[in-house]
Amino acid sequence: MKNIVVLGSTGSIGTQTLDVAARAPEEFRVVGLAVRTSVQKLVEQVRQFHPKAAVVYDEAAYARLAADWHEPDTQLLCGMEGLLEIVSMPEADMVVTAMVGMIGLRPTVQAIQAGKDIALANKETLVCAGKLIMGLAEKKGVRILPVDSEHGAIFQCLAGIDPGSLHKIILTASGGPFRGMRASELAGVRKEQALRHPNWSMGAKITIDSASMVNKGLEMIEARWLFHCPPEQIDVLVHPQSIIHSMVELVDGSVLAQLAVADMRLPIEVALAYPKRGKRVVEPLDLAQIGMLSFEKPDEEVFVSLRLAREAMVRGGLFPAALNAANECAVAAFLADRIGFTTIYQWIEQGMEWAERHGFDGEDYTLEDVFALETGIRQEFGEAL
Amino acid sequence: MKNIVVLGSTGSIGTQTLDVAARAPEEFRVVGLAVRTSVQKLVEQVRQFHPKAAVVYDEAAYARLAADWHEPDTQLLCGMEGLLEIVSMPEADMVVTAMVGMIGLRPTVQAIQAGKDIALANKETLVCAGKLIMGLAEKKGVRILPVDSEHGAIFQCLAGIDPGSLHKIILTASGGPFRGMRASELAGVRKEQALRHPNWSMGAKITIDSASMVNKGLEMIEARWLFHCPPEQIDVLVHPQSIIHSMVELVDGSVLAQLAVADMRLPIEVALAYPKRGKRVVEPLDLAQIGMLSFEKPDEEVFVSLRLAREAMVRGGLFPAALNAANECAVAAFLADRIGFTTIYQWIEQGMEWAERHGFDGEDYTLEDVFALETGIRQEFGEAL
Repeated sequence: MKNIVVLGSTGSIGTQTLDVAARAPEEFRVVGLAVRTSVQKLVEQVRQFHPKAAVVYDEAAYARLAADWHEPDTQLLCGMEGLLEIVSMPEADMVVTAMVGMIGLRPTVQAIQAGKDIALANKETLVCAGKLIMGLAEKKGVRILPVDSEHGAIFQCLAGIDPGSLHKIILTASGGPFRGMRASELAGVRKEQALRHPNWSMGAKITIDSASMVNKGLEMIEARWLFHCPPEQIDVLVHPQSIIHSMVELVDGSVLAQLAVADMRLPIEVALAYPKRGKRVVEPLDLAQIGMLSFEKPDEEVFVSLRLAREAMVRGGLFPAALNAANECAVAAFLADRIGFTTIYQWIEQGMEWAERHGFDGEDYTLEDVFALETGIRQEFGEAL
Repeated sequence: MKNIVVLGSTGSIGTQTLDVAARAPEEFRVVGLAVRTSVQKLVEQVRQFHPKAAVVYDEAAYARLAADWHEPDTQLLCGMEGLLEIVSMPEADMVVTAMVGMIGLRPTVQAIQAGKDIALANKETLVCAGKLIMGLAEKKGVRILPVDSEHGAIFQCLAGIDPGSLHKIILTASGGPFRGMRASELAGVRKEQALRHPNWSMGAKITIDSASMVNKGLEMIEARWLFHCPPEQIDVLVHPQSIIHSMVELVDGSVLAQLAVADMRLPIEVALAYPKRGKRVVEPLDLAQIGMLSFEKPDEEVFVSLRLAREAMVRGGLFPAALNAANECAVAAFLADRIGFTTIYQWIEQGMEWAERHGFDGEDYTLEDVFALETGIRQEFGEAL
């Protein structure tokens, strides 16, 4: 029996995590839930799972809910203080960090310090503070288990492999809705096109990131930290069917791959159940019915995000955090019809230049530096926090 | 440093094993070589590797060579006695069983009894005596490491997996030169067509077995023993490009696969180097260049070998040995233009009927029973031993 806390329990990953947990009540007990503002859904989840505590991050939403709270088994908490408290609960074995954005950093650090294993679904954690987080996790003997399909695949492929035998990580990418476009075509795409992902149903921000392939750039940065892999050993391969979720090439030339239907509940379950394997919650893979898997090199002249991510990794320090912050501003601006699609890439370059100009160019940094950089870049682009 | 003995050193697997060993002299030392009759090639190999001993199985060939032997470092041995002696050498850590046919059984048993790890390339060993061999290996704490591409792939996929987590083995098959044919077409194919394999360059017997898909049936039987997997959990998937060398499906629905270019030196190296990983001796896999992998269900109405292999596994005991012996007779007869291609399947059925009629239908058996069955079936079909 594993006791889990789910941060961001009403989002896409959060609800799927609870679905996995609900299907194996003999394996998983939900002891904590946290949301930003979705109090109505939270109440339903509390009534289903009876956690020890629940957090509403937004103070106004908390206040309204607290005034009318009738769940005697569940303590209601508020804000960042509530998040830091719930991840430290003595009952918790594992924290699923499925909230979106920089909000996830502090609770993740706190959970690691409290010795909880992390099922990591928050991209910002390793992109913005990978060195810091992985160092802390190692010090505390805490496992960081990736929840997304790509890193989950790599994690599974590397399970029986000596770290010195890894030659290359091959992140697969669907290529998104704009695969095959020229740069001039990509510059003219509209919001409605970018929001139509061929294989995965996800939130708006991550769907845009997938269309721009910034998402894959962020995953390269995460892979670097998760698997202690230097930037030059991380490749991206376009695989439109999203069946092979990623691969590893070993020093002897053997390639191991993980395949499954495109259903996030599998990588969630793999992380939750680790080191065991859970029962099947996804459809079985039928390769004969799928018939064909295809592969092509990504066009880095068009999807310059891959080149930018590699640049950020090589420059190190807070440059990946700058890339991420500038991209968040750019995606918000694109979704508000204020900039064109490929301007996202320009903003990312500007964000990294800003970091350099403002002295955020050292190899080491603190969590405060990460937040200061984020604030600075948001101000630069005129985006509210 | 690992000391290896190679039985069948001048055959296809044998020469490739020596190629792998020669490329990593700091890892592998060849301490023993054995051939059936190819004495000229053996002398070249002895001069290159300076083994402690070399065996010529054929007595006449041995006598001619012994009369003119000028290799002071290498003791020359003869016959089955020589094979049993060389696999028991105190210097040997691992025996590569790359000889063709039933000849391999006794030396393999002897090597296991002497505590040597086995790099298994001889198909007959597990097909004809799987229960006996695996039981002995377990008792002696000896590793049986598969050398062919399919079982090598499964072995690699299962490296980090708890045995209880395996749901299904998926053996991939190129489908051979007759993929897509109807039964009536298959009945009319000629020897020259059957000897043209699309992906692998192998000996005549195994090329015919590949065309009839008897080869895949034999691999199903081997997989059963190697991975302690019941017959109903072993599937075959046709994958004409031979890039995915096999897969495993775990209980949670996750599928792990091993991929590489079609080059036997990789599975050989994986077995030789285990549990380490050797340096790269094969071309790297370039999936973007390959572009596409395809999959289809095997047609068991046409390639009835898969159904026959499943039947032999379920009936257990010596039925797989009977399938194998009858197939050997049938392939020899087909290569001598004495029977048509699909008559191979009929002979296999007749071989299993023969085993039942002659009392070879118990679950347990000795090595002597295996040989008696082999002799009986060869006599039945009028094939010399």
